[in-house]
Amino acid sequence: MTKSSDLPEELQRLAVKIKTLIQRNLNPEGAPEPLYEASRHLTSVGGKMLRPYLAVKTCEAVGGREEDVMPAAAALELLHTFTLIHDDIIDNDQTRRGVPTVHSRWGIPVAILAGDLLFANVYRTVLEGSLPPERAIRVLSIITEATVKLCEGQVLDMTFPNLQEVGEKDYLKMVGWKTSCLFKAAAEVGGIAGGGTEKQISALGSFAEFAGIGFQIVDDILGLTADKTKLGKPVGSDIREGKKTLPIIHALNNASQSQKAVIHRAMGGNANQKEILAAKDLIVSLGSIEYTKRKAQRYVEDAKRRLDVLPESTAKDSIIELCNLLVLREF
Amino acid sequence: MTKSSDLPEELQRLAVKIKTLIQRNLNPEGAPEPLYEASRHLTSVGGKMLRPYLAVKTCEAVGGREEDVMPAAAALELLHTFTLIHDDIIDNDQTRRGVPTVHSRWGIPVAILAGDLLFANVYRTVLEGSLPPERAIRVLSIITEATVKLCEGQVLDMTFPNLQEVGEKDYLKMVGWKTSCLFKAAAEVGGIAGGGTEKQISALGSFAEFAGIGFQIVDDILGLTADKTKLGKPVGSDIREGKKTLPIIHALNNASQSQKAVIHRAMGGNANQKEILAAKDLIVSLGSIEYTKRKAQRYVEDAKRRLDVLPESTAKDSIIELCNLLVLREF
Repeated sequence: MTKSSDLPEELQRLAVKIKTLIQRNLNPEGAPEPLYEASRHLTSVGGKMLRPYLAVKTCEAVGGREEDVMPAAAALELLHTFTLIHDDIIDNDQTRRGVPTVHSRWGIPVAILAGDLLFANVYRTVLEGSLPPERAIRVLSIITEATVKLCEGQVLDMTFPNLQEVGEKDYLKMVGWKTSCLFKAAAEVGGIAGGGTEKQISALGSFAEFAGIGFQIVDDILGLTADKTKLGKPVGSDIREGKKTLPIIHALNNASQSQKAVIHRAMGGNANQKEILAAKDLIVSLGSIEYTKRKAQRYVEDAKRRLDVLPESTAKDSIIELCNLLVLREF
Repeated sequence: MTKSSDLPEELQRLAVKIKTLIQRNLNPEGAPEPLYEASRHLTSVGGKMLRPYLAVKTCEAVGGREEDVMPAAAALELLHTFTLIHDDIIDNDQTRRGVPTVHSRWGIPVAILAGDLLFANVYRTVLEGSLPPERAIRVLSIITEATVKLCEGQVLDMTFPNLQEVGEKDYLKMVGWKTSCLFKAAAEVGGIAGGGTEKQISALGSFAEFAGIGFQIVDDILGLTADKTKLGKPVGSDIREGKKTLPIIHALNNASQSQKAVIHRAMGGNANQKEILAAKDLIVSLGSIEYTKRKAQRYVEDAKRRLDVLPESTAKDSIIELCNLLVLREF
């Protein structure tokens, strides 16, 4: 039980190192300052650093050292940040991590280019690292394939069928595409950088894929129940934004016609906070939060079982602890 | 003199191969079709393929084979296309290669993602190629650094001082950043893929940097004097769009107050075709086209001299021929 209090500190320690690595290439002399300010913006205000953490711990879990994987871990955070900047333009989101999004502060042109610059830095950071060429190439391939998936996922999301027609299966496909592919990449990158066997690398990938789905599902609960102090947004923000999340899908599948109408009205974009809270309470009373929690727990348990192929180690314990924290973080 | 008629055919032959390589990864099963349609759009309608050609010929000029450099050559074209898609969003351009730009046809969100997808494919194409790992890594580093320069150049362009204050020096700095850095990268990539010596790779880089500046300067003349059949735009399109090109900068530096007023009025965005043609004729009469031609020729001559370190070969002849064609293409 003492261990579980170490994780936030560990993440904090790692965040400092990763930020230093990321920002090393984002302060050049004589370059256009707005571009670099914009590209540093989201990293300078935070980021949970879950992907770098996963890369470091999976590297250690197969016998590698933290320093072997650090540049690749920073690259994963850069990739995540680049997609956030472009996705915020696409979704026209105004706030991220409690601050204005890059495009709402610097405009769309600079935000597009800041994203592109970070994307280039994904590769630069790995290429400047000290991995043996064969491993570096494999790491870059994994990162590249994950990026392709992320682009595809974002378009799928935009062209997603109307809420009425979205089933749980569509939802899970989307989550795989948009979120868990980067967790999967992080764990595989860690395994490769640490010199793991093929069996270990593959198990780590599957582990992170399932854990990533669990993570996203928990995020969906937070998007419904968390308030400004936790999310930087009022309670029910996912309802307000009309997002197709698992609890909302479950509620609609289990609601009466009149209950459906309440939820749809709240998601229409013109609802007031009272209507949104009523919809949220309805979703809770339909058991959708409980259902979603159980689902998240099941994914995380499945994920943890994949780790059986790894020898016991403190790194493995840290990974399991991260999983537990993910599912516990708000219920 | 017979040789100079081979170049268009050579470019044509290469274009077919490069397109095949590029499109191989842009037709996946089950992926969101609008994203892939959008990402194939500009390549399917054309592209001069100058950067791939340069990479192939520089590879051969140091003793390598075409197949060694083909994936990297395709990657350079992908990189060029990706930047065109994002730059067209940024500049709000509606037409490119005689067809609607990607964002004007598929919307900004899909265009951002199509660009990102092509960017990921830049790396994928090199990583899937058969270069030895050390060379692949060096090629990727060069491509990455060129991308950083391109992003910086685009922001510099956006924050360029008002036309009144732009001097030739600012202009040349911008051209280096925005255009010639990719030519330089293409030649270095060719030299590396072909196994050239450090001296050869460096000479090829300098050659292409100067030739790229010459190429951009000639483009500036075309943007002023070419018509719809050549450019897909009416005569004087750069004046209409208020672009800060070398002939316009030269003309403003050599015009009387009343002549300056004519040019500024034509560039204001609300001018009619008669006013634009009057400004164009004025720029011609001020000797600015002739001045710009001489400047382009000087850059290309400088560029060719850098090739002296290379042994004689048909590839070297082809590179020189490309240079000559570039400067000759419209005057």
